Amino acid sequence: MTEHDFLTDFRAMSVYGRTAGGGVDRQAGTVADHETRAWFAGWLESNGFDVRYDAIANQFGLVELVPGAPYVLVGSHLDSQPLAGRFDGAYGVLAGAHAAREVARRVREGELEATCNLAVVNWFNEEGSRFAPSMMGSSVLTGKLALDAALAVTDRAGVTVADAIASGGMPTGATPPPVAAYAEIHVEQGRGLERSGTTIGLVDGTWAASKYRMVVRGEQSHTGSTVMADRKDALFGAALLIVAARELTEELPEGMLHSSVSELDLAPNSPVTVARLVELNLDLRSPDEEVLRRANALLEQRIAEIEQRARVVVERRLTHEWGLLSYQPEGVELARRAAEALGLTHAPAMTVAGHDSTNMKDVVPTVMLFVPSVDGVSHNEAELTRDEDCVAGVALLTEVLAGLAAGELGSETAFTPAG
Amino acid sequence: MTEHDFLTDFRAMSVYGRTAGGGVDRQAGTVADHETRAWFAGWLESNGFDVRYDAIANQFGLVELVPGAPYVLVGSHLDSQPLAGRFDGAYGVLAGAHAAREVARRVREGELEATCNLAVVNWFNEEGSRFAPSMMGSSVLTGKLALDAALAVTDRAGVTVADAIASGGMPTGATPPPVAAYAEIHVEQGRGLERSGTTIGLVDGTWAASKYRMVVRGEQSHTGSTVMADRKDALFGAALLIVAARELTEELPEGMLHSSVSELDLAPNSPVTVARLVELNLDLRSPDEEVLRRANALLEQRIAEIEQRARVVVERRLTHEWGLLSYQPEGVELARRAAEALGLTHAPAMTVAGHDSTNMKDVVPTVMLFVPSVDGVSHNEAELTRDEDCVAGVALLTEVLAGLAAGELGSETAFTPAG
Repeated sequence: MTEHDFLTDFRAMSVYGRTAGGGVDRQAGTVADHETRAWFAGWLESNGFDVRYDAIANQFGLVELVPGAPYVLVGSHLDSQPLAGRFDGAYGVLAGAHAAREVARRVREGELEATCNLAVVNWFNEEGSRFAPSMMGSSVLTGKLALDAALAVTDRAGVTVADAIASGGMPTGATPPPVAAYAEIHVEQGRGLERSGTTIGLVDGTWAASKYRMVVRGEQSHTGSTVMADRKDALFGAALLIVAARELTEELPEGMLHSSVSELDLAPNSPVTVARLVELNLDLRSPDEEVLRRANALLEQRIAEIEQRARVVVERRLTHEWGLLSYQPEGVELARRAAEALGLTHAPAMTVAGHDSTNMKDVVPTVMLFVPSVDGVSHNEAELTRDEDCVAGVALLTEVLAGLAAGELGSETAFTPAG
Repeated sequence: MTEHDFLTDFRAMSVYGRTAGGGVDRQAGTVADHETRAWFAGWLESNGFDVRYDAIANQFGLVELVPGAPYVLVGSHLDSQPLAGRFDGAYGVLAGAHAAREVARRVREGELEATCNLAVVNWFNEEGSRFAPSMMGSSVLTGKLALDAALAVTDRAGVTVADAIASGGMPTGATPPPVAAYAEIHVEQGRGLERSGTTIGLVDGTWAASKYRMVVRGEQSHTGSTVMADRKDALFGAALLIVAARELTEELPEGMLHSSVSELDLAPNSPVTVARLVELNLDLRSPDEEVLRRANALLEQRIAEIEQRARVVVERRLTHEWGLLSYQPEGVELARRAAEALGLTHAPAMTVAGHDSTNMKDVVPTVMLFVPSVDGVSHNEAELTRDEDCVAGVALLTEVLAGLAAGELGSETAFTPAG
């Protein structure tokens, strides 16, 4: 059975970058990422796909069914956060590969008439933990991020994206295929489906978000002898910002704002010298644009208060901002019908996290699907999606891909990738 | 004049490790530290001192005046914090060298009868910014820290103290001299002397202190999709700790508690993953042991509240603790008489910061002196002590050292260093 194949393959793939805690650690461009890609290239080739890599190292597995026609893309990402789970991204890539293999079989055996070709994609650096920004591969392909700028990004050790890609020895530089439509399945990374006992989330929109890079400037002084009133402690200022970001979520209607600070660097980071400088990220996300607007306004007030209280200067730069973004209703409807036909429970869902589909939906008809995450756990080695849900997701993705390949979303006009 | 010599020499020495901002950056065992030591070894040799290094790389300049007698040590440290000032430590080493040279001259020319020999010391790694703990060299010499443990300490890059010392090429391993007494002069690193218009601080005690290493344990999760109530955010917990440490200083009588968190590391430190782990230092210091006791008790309450609020576990380990510690009153009185004789304004002072004299006073009679810091600035490139105060300090230290060399504090029983 195809289902069993999927689980077997998924177990085999999960060996690469595996951690002692049962997860994986495959940050973009690391040895573990390269090894996972090499395994996946082998899978694609032995299943009849033509493997190629574009200049930002997006990995494609092409299968031509209609010579000269554009491609329906399906996939996700194999890279991971540090000490992450096996499912985030990786599930969607392998599910896409299995779905594409099955759809190609149907076309070849005359069970389905295709208007498009098929391509599986493993996007480069979706996670953004080693190299910022996240969703790098799909941002370059969709022209939102310049290739040169992406290749020049460095990690904390000073290694560039270009060097990290080169270290994998992939033959990069291929022209990406023209794209007619995109489909992606992903673990939910939340508890919504699990709580409602639903197998499939039909993603119809993305939470609005404001992402900041902040620099807190204080002044070095002695941690012992400097009287408290004289201190300009950048780390104290940063701590007040972190607490303020959390308190915003308590001041606004429950569940309507997510905030986080998760990356922070300070200087000089010495046990006896007050920090002169802290750099951190600060994200605000909401399913309601008005709530997000209020959160941003409150944050601005808090920053002014913090500058006074900690005697620091807070510089903020909005690095990403987006409003509520919808996936095409026709795509949601196509997926809903397919779920109905398969007898799978389903419900509309929004995604809080960004996905490569967030980029793709801006250029082509895009379908985004969720399967449940046990306890909502993600970016954690304990991340889990049950076998039956994995298999159900592959079945649904297969039907959605079949619909897209048959041109059900009117995919006659293709997007020509950048780069 | 000796005074002018001092300022000329101090300017010459300040070249090593100098920074664009007018300070120095000479963390222990770095090239800049080695270069400063090499310059100082040259100064010592050309002024008749016998240079040697013990196993933890304390740098000694010995001058024998009374064959077989123990040594009066005088000195401080040439290492610095990152982007630090020129005076912290370095002033005291060179002042000690000039004082010792003058006292030796007096003895040789029959102006003073000595009962002890003299040794200038440049302690290894007083600052502790690269290698913890601080006051490493004097801790090893006084037997408070095992030599092997000190040599095995690593910096963030994994370099050991042993390797950092070896990289300097010094002939280490000499037996330190038996010590009869110790004297140190240092910049105040606070505003006390400046505000009261006093030239000399006669240090009679050390603030009590409790220094903690804390580990905050949370759980990795997605910064976007994880609902706030499910988060176990170690960085949020750490931020609450940092704010609580500051608020303790506001709850207790003004000026009676100093607190700081200045070193912090988090994992995984990624823009889209909630931190699972934060490690930080947290220091409490007070001139009143009862206030410090209350601060520790309040901190314990706050930690329990923070564990609840942030859903984290806070592990704390007391790494250093000391009560109010007195310098020998006879030493303070010797310095007071010398200041009077020189016509220098003086006042009793306590030190908030730790100094190598903090270790030495536990094993031998010890005199600790302060000169004013402009605006109280320290651990900052803008650190400054005025020329006239520098020169006055050298003059006073010379008289104090003369008194110690003449056995005024009864230095017939010597301390035999460890290691």
